[in-house]
Amino acid sequence: MTDFDYCVIGGGFAGLTAALRLKQAGRSVAVLEARDRLGGRTFTEVRADGCWIDRGGAWIGPGQDRIQALMNEFGVRSYRQYTDGEAMMVVDGKQYRYTGTIPWTMSPWASMNLGATFVELGHMCKAIPLEAPWEAPKAGKWDRISLAQWLDRAVWSKPAYELLETAIAGSYTSAASEVSMLFALYQMASGGGPNFVFGVKDGAQDARPVGGMGALYGPMAAELGDSIHLSQPVHRIEQDAAGVTAHADGSTVRAHRAIVAVPLAIAGQIRYDPMLPVDRSFLHQRVPSGSIIKISVLYDEPFWRRDGLSGQSAAPGSPATVTIDGCTDAGRPGVLCVISEGPIARQIGRLDAAERRTAILRELVTRFGEKAGAPVDYVEQDWSTERYSGGGMLSHTPTGVLTQYGHALREPCGRIHWAGTESSAVMCGWVDGAIRSGERAASEVLQHELAAV
Amino acid sequence: MTDFDYCVIGGGFAGLTAALRLKQAGRSVAVLEARDRLGGRTFTEVRADGCWIDRGGAWIGPGQDRIQALMNEFGVRSYRQYTDGEAMMVVDGKQYRYTGTIPWTMSPWASMNLGATFVELGHMCKAIPLEAPWEAPKAGKWDRISLAQWLDRAVWSKPAYELLETAIAGSYTSAASEVSMLFALYQMASGGGPNFVFGVKDGAQDARPVGGMGALYGPMAAELGDSIHLSQPVHRIEQDAAGVTAHADGSTVRAHRAIVAVPLAIAGQIRYDPMLPVDRSFLHQRVPSGSIIKISVLYDEPFWRRDGLSGQSAAPGSPATVTIDGCTDAGRPGVLCVISEGPIARQIGRLDAAERRTAILRELVTRFGEKAGAPVDYVEQDWSTERYSGGGMLSHTPTGVLTQYGHALREPCGRIHWAGTESSAVMCGWVDGAIRSGERAASEVLQHELAAV
Repeated sequence: MTDFDYCVIGGGFAGLTAALRLKQAGRSVAVLEARDRLGGRTFTEVRADGCWIDRGGAWIGPGQDRIQALMNEFGVRSYRQYTDGEAMMVVDGKQYRYTGTIPWTMSPWASMNLGATFVELGHMCKAIPLEAPWEAPKAGKWDRISLAQWLDRAVWSKPAYELLETAIAGSYTSAASEVSMLFALYQMASGGGPNFVFGVKDGAQDARPVGGMGALYGPMAAELGDSIHLSQPVHRIEQDAAGVTAHADGSTVRAHRAIVAVPLAIAGQIRYDPMLPVDRSFLHQRVPSGSIIKISVLYDEPFWRRDGLSGQSAAPGSPATVTIDGCTDAGRPGVLCVISEGPIARQIGRLDAAERRTAILRELVTRFGEKAGAPVDYVEQDWSTERYSGGGMLSHTPTGVLTQYGHALREPCGRIHWAGTESSAVMCGWVDGAIRSGERAASEVLQHELAAV
Repeated sequence: MTDFDYCVIGGGFAGLTAALRLKQAGRSVAVLEARDRLGGRTFTEVRADGCWIDRGGAWIGPGQDRIQALMNEFGVRSYRQYTDGEAMMVVDGKQYRYTGTIPWTMSPWASMNLGATFVELGHMCKAIPLEAPWEAPKAGKWDRISLAQWLDRAVWSKPAYELLETAIAGSYTSAASEVSMLFALYQMASGGGPNFVFGVKDGAQDARPVGGMGALYGPMAAELGDSIHLSQPVHRIEQDAAGVTAHADGSTVRAHRAIVAVPLAIAGQIRYDPMLPVDRSFLHQRVPSGSIIKISVLYDEPFWRRDGLSGQSAAPGSPATVTIDGCTDAGRPGVLCVISEGPIARQIGRLDAAERRTAILRELVTRFGEKAGAPVDYVEQDWSTERYSGGGMLSHTPTGVLTQYGHALREPCGRIHWAGTESSAVMCGWVDGAIRSGERAASEVLQHELAAV
């Protein structure tokens, strides 16, 4: 048993940020991370040739000020996502090339419907108070319906529907039928609206840190030094009048307060003594994670660029649901990032690795030509089977949850404070939101010290 | 580490039944129960004066053949729920007395609407294949909408709406906005339709075992003898080619196969090595439990009976949402059973015990007169704070879950088999369903022996 001022559970961006701010404020802190690596739902692999691959969360965009500030602090530069050339939309086996956010070449009717839906979503987002989405004037109504049902009503063009279902449900890495409309609006609003969420350029995929997310969490970890304890899954947290005790498989930590910075479904696997208030316990049962397989397919060069393609494609129902150029700032080797999300990710997750690879490469060949079938490497990350993420990339709330239990997302429970991107009012679901949540939680515990003086 | 043929995790009716059938078949079995008592979501308290109180699940009804068979096996008799006299409906502070299932005295319009809704629900239930509700012709459509939303469409009379929301949502001990319409229909259909679910006489509250549920699980436990191990919360289950190892706080059990017979949210708190298939892991994140406070208020005699009242009342929005006569077969003392379900249960759960008692008794006085305000005893059970139930009485699936993950409810995962009332196609959510699930799981593991010969 070792004593610290504070104990942070989880070494993703939320936990690392909280710990860093506390350490910088001169407090002693222990970060207990279950895995043998840091980064949580981000995970940068640096390869022998120096090329780095983000196996999880990767992008940044305008308005994400907190990650930008942290990057400035550690001297991490960013580079723009490659967006030159045409994007591609595949519907019913037919390919449509386009530029911008809306695949206007598909059909005028579909484009009009898509455009109108974006406008409507943007309008609805404006009615969401980010700090308390459950207080939106229509919160009760929007939390009664699933995103799927709203789409059923709002979208009449089949290709438009499929594209939106892929795009929106993809954002939550779950079927649209699972996600509360209120949650979808809240999450969109927390990023600034649908244009940010679905846009690449000037949107949520606008840029990336040079060196990947690891170029940021690596130096953060270095500054935290021996505060970090890997392979320490916490299974129990006790609290009493004087402090908290966190029990991991290999160690026990005593501290004034704890910050739990793991996804909600994972927080629900910890035993709390005494039990948490009912609304928080119940929240842990009600914020499931989604499924996503992120594949980086490596080629000698990004050959699609020469063909006038951006590398971006969307194909509802395909195992390679979405692709995007995944090259580093060096532009060599060629990295095509393939993302399979939601129900399809679970479906192809059941195939064996060779079958899955064959299915993915077949899809890439139909979109990008024969060269796509002969990669030099193939790196796959299935977040559904990451025990300590419980899925990826983002959790969602089903209908009826945000209005009833939303207030418990950030509310501390005695000496236990909550971080994690899902607890962030701004940029909820992005790395930036995780960082904000870590700073908020650190500030909460320090405020308590002040109150105790 | 001790060796058994089979290990059962959970000592509620599902687990006890599975263990009993295995022991009766000559197999050695260990039941690991986390609590210091058996019964799971049933819990019979026998008082000093011999009066017994069911603090959890209590009733049986026609069609519940498996609990009836078990009662016959152990010589447990049943007695009819007291239903003489008038029931009461309280809407907007006004009391309506009535007999039968529908409060027809309320208003002709409301009654007509209620009647029509029951007919419609019954009709929809007939389209549900119990073994695979996700294969219903309209499964996709019904799993996209919440029960609340269906009610919004189907019910136009305000009192009818409130009554139905109270009754139906009460069945799932959660807000109607949280429950998938497909799940609601499936659960109703698994009991034989809405008349069974909402009816008292000839319905789900038709009768009770003499001596309470404990008169049944007590003798079952006695027959199981030293197979039962209390205060053994299992936190980890390993499986390998030869068997399973269950790790509890105080012991380790090795067996050929394990039957996990706990609610799904609780099953999700166990660590499985290797990890479970994704659909089962994800299911554990997606079947939350509800909230219910069950209060038994004791008087010298059931005075309401002399006043021509059955003791049954429903008051949407009131802390005493539902009341029902809770006397034993002896009829003395008078026991009025008060049930607070769903959002209201969480709300009054936050009061301190004295405030809550005052609020409840105040409601009873307005319904049953001054005598109701002076009970001789008051016994309260809040299932939301039962750590090893994770809530009560029943779990539900939000929208989009049954169609995607329903197949994983019963599907064994290697050497791990699943029991619990939520896994029963028939009488899902009742004690009878728990018993059926236990017998099904026992039969599954024995079938595997046969296949291995």
